[in-house]
Amino acid sequence: MFENTERTELSALGEFGLISHLSKHFISKNDSTILGIGDDAAIVKMGDAYIAISTDSFIEGVHFDLMFHPLKHLGYKAVAATVSDICAMNAIPTQITVAIGLSNRFSLEAVEELYEGMRLACEKYEIDLIGGDTSSSRSGLILNLTAIGQVDPKKVTYRKGAKPNDLLVVTGDVGGAYMGLQILEREKKVFIEHPVMQPDLETYDYIVGRQLKAEARVDVIKLLDELKIIPTSMMDVSDGIASELFHLGQASAVGFDIYEDKLPIDPQTIDTALAFDLNPSIMALNGGEDYELLFTIDQRDWDKIKNNPDFTVIGHANELVNSYKLNTKSGNSFDIKAQGWEHFSKD
Amino acid sequence: MFENTERTELSALGEFGLISHLSKHFISKNDSTILGIGDDAAIVKMGDAYIAISTDSFIEGVHFDLMFHPLKHLGYKAVAATVSDICAMNAIPTQITVAIGLSNRFSLEAVEELYEGMRLACEKYEIDLIGGDTSSSRSGLILNLTAIGQVDPKKVTYRKGAKPNDLLVVTGDVGGAYMGLQILEREKKVFIEHPVMQPDLETYDYIVGRQLKAEARVDVIKLLDELKIIPTSMMDVSDGIASELFHLGQASAVGFDIYEDKLPIDPQTIDTALAFDLNPSIMALNGGEDYELLFTIDQRDWDKIKNNPDFTVIGHANELVNSYKLNTKSGNSFDIKAQGWEHFSKD
Repeated sequence: MFENTERTELSALGEFGLISHLSKHFISKNDSTILGIGDDAAIVKMGDAYIAISTDSFIEGVHFDLMFHPLKHLGYKAVAATVSDICAMNAIPTQITVAIGLSNRFSLEAVEELYEGMRLACEKYEIDLIGGDTSSSRSGLILNLTAIGQVDPKKVTYRKGAKPNDLLVVTGDVGGAYMGLQILEREKKVFIEHPVMQPDLETYDYIVGRQLKAEARVDVIKLLDELKIIPTSMMDVSDGIASELFHLGQASAVGFDIYEDKLPIDPQTIDTALAFDLNPSIMALNGGEDYELLFTIDQRDWDKIKNNPDFTVIGHANELVNSYKLNTKSGNSFDIKAQGWEHFSKD
Repeated sequence: MFENTERTELSALGEFGLISHLSKHFISKNDSTILGIGDDAAIVKMGDAYIAISTDSFIEGVHFDLMFHPLKHLGYKAVAATVSDICAMNAIPTQITVAIGLSNRFSLEAVEELYEGMRLACEKYEIDLIGGDTSSSRSGLILNLTAIGQVDPKKVTYRKGAKPNDLLVVTGDVGGAYMGLQILEREKKVFIEHPVMQPDLETYDYIVGRQLKAEARVDVIKLLDELKIIPTSMMDVSDGIASELFHLGQASAVGFDIYEDKLPIDPQTIDTALAFDLNPSIMALNGGEDYELLFTIDQRDWDKIKNNPDFTVIGHANELVNSYKLNTKSGNSFDIKAQGWEHFSKD
């Protein structure tokens, strides 16, 4: 009954382009809105408190594949991924809401598995599930989670704030979740072609676990507080370090130098990448879904983290805006390209 | 790669049954969680403030039909419907997040229309869009909105709290949005069979508007504050008065008597219902999506509302738990059945 005359494909903008295009028409007017669109979470002032709030969608066939993602793990991962955005603001997550769309393919028993995973994650992260919405869907499972958390206004950490010479730190290790996905995709193909074969996942337990059983680093936020460190900028590694580096750099108006030999990569990630004929460092830079934290700290804070195996300094910020360099083991220097995880790909 | 042995269909529980079944495993542990699942919105204490938070999904083919729902109106309505849940807690909405899933059927121009509607609603309700998520979808448009609002702890209004003899009040008029939907469905059929015919919607402008251009009653929340009325219980009319009455009654452990001749029904709703051979009062009780507010007040507050055309006293609470009676114009009394809008129907 109505039609558009012009037509611009969404793929022409990409995901980040679309968000920035749409959000420019929205101007925040409430005093309570401290930070709107453009960071891992929004920040709202309520009374004397700062609240971080973030929302995440998980759509079957786009974000997950139920052929290899057990529902219990999926529920856990959805909570972890959403909570991770709250951590990225240096906030402690406290509550979550879950909206779910279900096609009639799903039985009550299947939904119970999913919620059992969410319950376990809520228990782990000490957050409460406080609300939601349930509806039918015409095509599979759709999840939307919104998490909130609390942060001391003096400690809130944005993407902006990194200064030249700040140290760039990443928690845990990176690239594993992406390599785990490659294994699962490969085993899925084998299974489809030869249904009697059972997948061999034991050899890849760590990286498959990184993909299927993601964890949010709430522990790191608590540890930073104990160590009396307030990062100068921070975000979570959901799209890959390379992509996140661009976000931190753009928001903070700095460039970054990172060092290949410092990238924390698990041996299983390295072995699997090599078996797939892939460069482990490239995987570590571009693999998504690790849900580690990437942040910058003032050099004076280095002593506080230097002996902690959970923190790795992988580089530093510099004054060269829009410059992102990878210094390789062989002594070369390359420009890093953000490949990231664009959902509206141009392919 | 995995399978369930048992299988219980979701339709065996229905939407409300599913929510209550799933939520019983979640026990809130944080002191900041004042109210979890089971009301229009959850209530969280942050610092000295109470925050209401609610989430709503809008899935193409389930919640809306783009054959007759212009995208701009849809964007407006999605915001209004989400904000309405915040109002139902006697809270003033302040911020909203929007997660969107889009199939490649949608152009940038179409998405711009949708967001223009959301922008207009944000302007109208004086709320800020502060965040979101954008991803592709394999089947049409999926929207998930989460709204937050602020409420004075002394004024927060739940579904529970109605006392026997409290007056039952509804704002505006009811049944219009449902009758508007009947008109749109009819015109859609005509259009599919005879594409050259233009739909005649002018005769039905009010009820079609009620369906396509829903409004949240933020104005009523502000008015109640001016009138110094704190309702004893409240919810919004999204599933129909009959269904909401059951929720208020169950949460408050009261029954309700309502009077057919008091139901506020617009003449266009009445005329259209009669033309469709439907009983206007049944439409008014069971039609959803009016987004009016249904609340109870102490009788002592009656003087404050009696001359306001926006408020209609349609009945009162009584001590008969699980008793919901419609007293008809002809002097009979019938039990009201909650038909509501169950998304997992048994049909």
